[in-house]
Amino acid sequence: MTPAYEELSTTWTRLHRLGHLQSIASWDRAAMMPPKGSEARASAMAEMSALLHRMRTDPRLAELLARAEDEALEPMQRANVAEMRREWRSSNALPEALVEASSLAAARCEHAWRSQRPANDWAGFAANLREVLRLARETAQRLSEQTGLAPYDALMDQFEPGMTSAEVDRVFGDLQQWLPELVRRAREHQAKDTIELPTGPFAKSAQRALSHDVMALLGFDFDAGRLDESAHPFSGGVPEDTRLTTRYRDDDLMQSLMGTIHETGHARYEQNLPREWLGQPVAYARSMGIHESQSLSFEMQLGRSRPFAGLLAPLLAKHFGAQRAFEPDNLHRLMTRVRPDFIRVDADELTYPAHVILRYRIERALIEGTVEVDDIPSLWDEAMQSLLGIDTRGNYRDGCMQDVHWPAGAFGYFPCYTLGAMYAAQWFATIRTRWPDLDARIARGELAPVFDWLHDNIWSQASRWSSHELAMRASGEALNPAHFRRHLEARYLA
Amino acid sequence: MTPAYEELSTTWTRLHRLGHLQSIASWDRAAMMPPKGSEARASAMAEMSALLHRMRTDPRLAELLARAEDEALEPMQRANVAEMRREWRSSNALPEALVEASSLAAARCEHAWRSQRPANDWAGFAANLREVLRLARETAQRLSEQTGLAPYDALMDQFEPGMTSAEVDRVFGDLQQWLPELVRRAREHQAKDTIELPTGPFAKSAQRALSHDVMALLGFDFDAGRLDESAHPFSGGVPEDTRLTTRYRDDDLMQSLMGTIHETGHARYEQNLPREWLGQPVAYARSMGIHESQSLSFEMQLGRSRPFAGLLAPLLAKHFGAQRAFEPDNLHRLMTRVRPDFIRVDADELTYPAHVILRYRIERALIEGTVEVDDIPSLWDEAMQSLLGIDTRGNYRDGCMQDVHWPAGAFGYFPCYTLGAMYAAQWFATIRTRWPDLDARIARGELAPVFDWLHDNIWSQASRWSSHELAMRASGEALNPAHFRRHLEARYLA
Repeated sequence: MTPAYEELSTTWTRLHRLGHLQSIASWDRAAMMPPKGSEARASAMAEMSALLHRMRTDPRLAELLARAEDEALEPMQRANVAEMRREWRSSNALPEALVEASSLAAARCEHAWRSQRPANDWAGFAANLREVLRLARETAQRLSEQTGLAPYDALMDQFEPGMTSAEVDRVFGDLQQWLPELVRRAREHQAKDTIELPTGPFAKSAQRALSHDVMALLGFDFDAGRLDESAHPFSGGVPEDTRLTTRYRDDDLMQSLMGTIHETGHARYEQNLPREWLGQPVAYARSMGIHESQSLSFEMQLGRSRPFAGLLAPLLAKHFGAQRAFEPDNLHRLMTRVRPDFIRVDADELTYPAHVILRYRIERALIEGTVEVDDIPSLWDEAMQSLLGIDTRGNYRDGCMQDVHWPAGAFGYFPCYTLGAMYAAQWFATIRTRWPDLDARIARGELAPVFDWLHDNIWSQASRWSSHELAMRASGEALNPAHFRRHLEARYLA
Repeated sequence: MTPAYEELSTTWTRLHRLGHLQSIASWDRAAMMPPKGSEARASAMAEMSALLHRMRTDPRLAELLARAEDEALEPMQRANVAEMRREWRSSNALPEALVEASSLAAARCEHAWRSQRPANDWAGFAANLREVLRLARETAQRLSEQTGLAPYDALMDQFEPGMTSAEVDRVFGDLQQWLPELVRRAREHQAKDTIELPTGPFAKSAQRALSHDVMALLGFDFDAGRLDESAHPFSGGVPEDTRLTTRYRDDDLMQSLMGTIHETGHARYEQNLPREWLGQPVAYARSMGIHESQSLSFEMQLGRSRPFAGLLAPLLAKHFGAQRAFEPDNLHRLMTRVRPDFIRVDADELTYPAHVILRYRIERALIEGTVEVDDIPSLWDEAMQSLLGIDTRGNYRDGCMQDVHWPAGAFGYFPCYTLGAMYAAQWFATIRTRWPDLDARIARGELAPVFDWLHDNIWSQASRWSSHELAMRASGEALNPAHFRRHLEARYLA
């Protein structure tokens, strides 16, 4: 008999159902909602955040959790209770008024950012961001008191449980030892390359059709999800109904194509979480770092590989007519071209980590209170100059206002991207051990080795293990940046 | 001091906010959701229905309502409390388990109906509908006990408060005195007409662009709403963000065009409810009969009029090239052609009431328990034969399975369509008294007299008055079918 467990399980099923409405409303806000719907939507979502928070902080849960932890549970149930406990702990650290105020401030800041960014309106943006940061600091402080973690680590823990800034410093420190030199050598190596650029304009309808074909090639289930458009591509919705977005530029088809491949990686993780456990915390994706390891497995490991270029080539020709730019070797050169630039989401694989390291430094200092919102532009300009040699002075739009994370209040997320890139390299190193002829298989369109391995080792495992244990079980070792280095050297110096 | 009123007002603001998420999820289900999302969505919406129901049946509300009714309130506040009382009364008649079971059964029946209807699968549909009907009967019985109304009247009261089947019988009885003869004479009158049909196929993108132009002409605010597609056109979303749908056939552009005009009428009502009261019951649309009077003011009174055909003609030519069919006189003949047919939503203005009378008779008998689901097909066949001379035997798809209302559990709604058509005629009779040159103004594209009158007399009044009092104030008399008759005679026998 496990009565306490059963009651907890029922409560989390209810949270999952109400959270479903919140997730769909959130997707709708980014992909569908007209501007005048914004205030009402913000109020509705804040009300729901407060309600979910009240459910998660119901005093009765403390007693039920304590009792369930003493019940005779199956291993999966035990892992489920551990996840409930984790969620309970962070929810109970935060008063309802703070949760509601954070939701409202973030919704307002993000909404205004959508027009402030194109207008390069730093002053208007900063005014809203100050309030978002004030609430994030309070959240970090309260989570820190509850968990014993440092304030920034306590925020990061919500996206990547178990990760600390000491560990981030270790792996990013390793990266900084060899990456600048690798970038230099790769650019030198590529200097002699000639690259044909695809000739536009590229009709949005053709780009959309191409995205659908590529999603189908990558195994996306269209009966359980959709592809739409938004200003900032994302993967949202619910595991039962996964909503991806991309964005189309009529002068650059690679942006929507790579965005779609990236988001499809997120989507397949969601679409393959264990159905029989859905609704329970143990069935959610492990963490955002592991999530990014899926999108980057798709985009970087698979999508930008030479054999995959051979699969993309006929699809590009189908939708845009034959072009020399679509010849596989050229396409691969195009997808692996290293070129420091302003925008993180458009960055190549080699310079991407510099964008993350810059943001990590700034947001950590913001949360620790050693810098303020007004300091962001000069910190940004300085770091972009020293890390990538790019001048962003006065260009807030393509500088410190380019990302949705800070206006949305998501401090502590950025490290997940580069952790994900490292995990992805580690997964593919393991897959290659099992399938030494992997590239030949991919070239033949045989993607099952990749999908099956990810399904068995990552997707189906959901939150059963910690990220560390998941990595140990999947690859036999903890997070190891050496795999990322070997992958980059093989791709960029060969 | 009005502390009880203030507390009630806060509670209803919360209901409005959570209801917002439910409304958006409902729109999404019909317009966006992929098939495998259905079960999770049904569970989420049933959970929310139960939650909203618990809030509306909080025992504390009984005491607050009693106290607020004794407080010194402004007239608008007093009307607001009366609406709260009405909502409270019907919510408290229904146990939570019944509300949740009804929401689930309807979601499942409606979802299955989407594929059963094209497959003409009556047996599969009937199995689900039996459960929906069983729950609707229980709902009717409980509402009846609470309100003292007859069971069917108690259901109808939820869509058209104050309306009884005795009153429906009175006005429908009046209609049946003269409508069949009017249909006969109109068809005779039209027998000699030659009508040019528009030549297709009509690209969906061009139909969509036409719909947008017509919505703009009709004053729709695209910053506060959207137009999308669904199997069954509807107007949904929230007042702050109104979501319309239409459907496109490549062989018939009139269907999407008239559907769009109809739904835009609903949308402008929602978009012009009093903003300063939004979130309170008094600020919601008065009733579904009054709502249909807006869609039918747009579609029938305005949209199918001869002067409006003159406004549509250049828009049609713009999107589909010049055609003789788009010549205004021809277009008007096309939009007013009387032709008994299978489908209610595609019916002409004169035969539409027969579709409603048929459904009203059947659904009333279903709720009263004098007939069962298995009796529907033969009752349908018989009534279609006697009222319209149409043979629907074996054709469930275009017969008794054509509407979403019954699978969705909305018994008692159908009379609203014809009540709305009568109210619309009454509104336009009043507008014409004030503006005797209305047709000339419309012909010049001057639609402000119509929009201003509807704004001042209907939209801005929201639920301040009962439907009866709203009609008295707007038109100087109660619902009077004579206006509908005069309108139809003027249009079809002239």
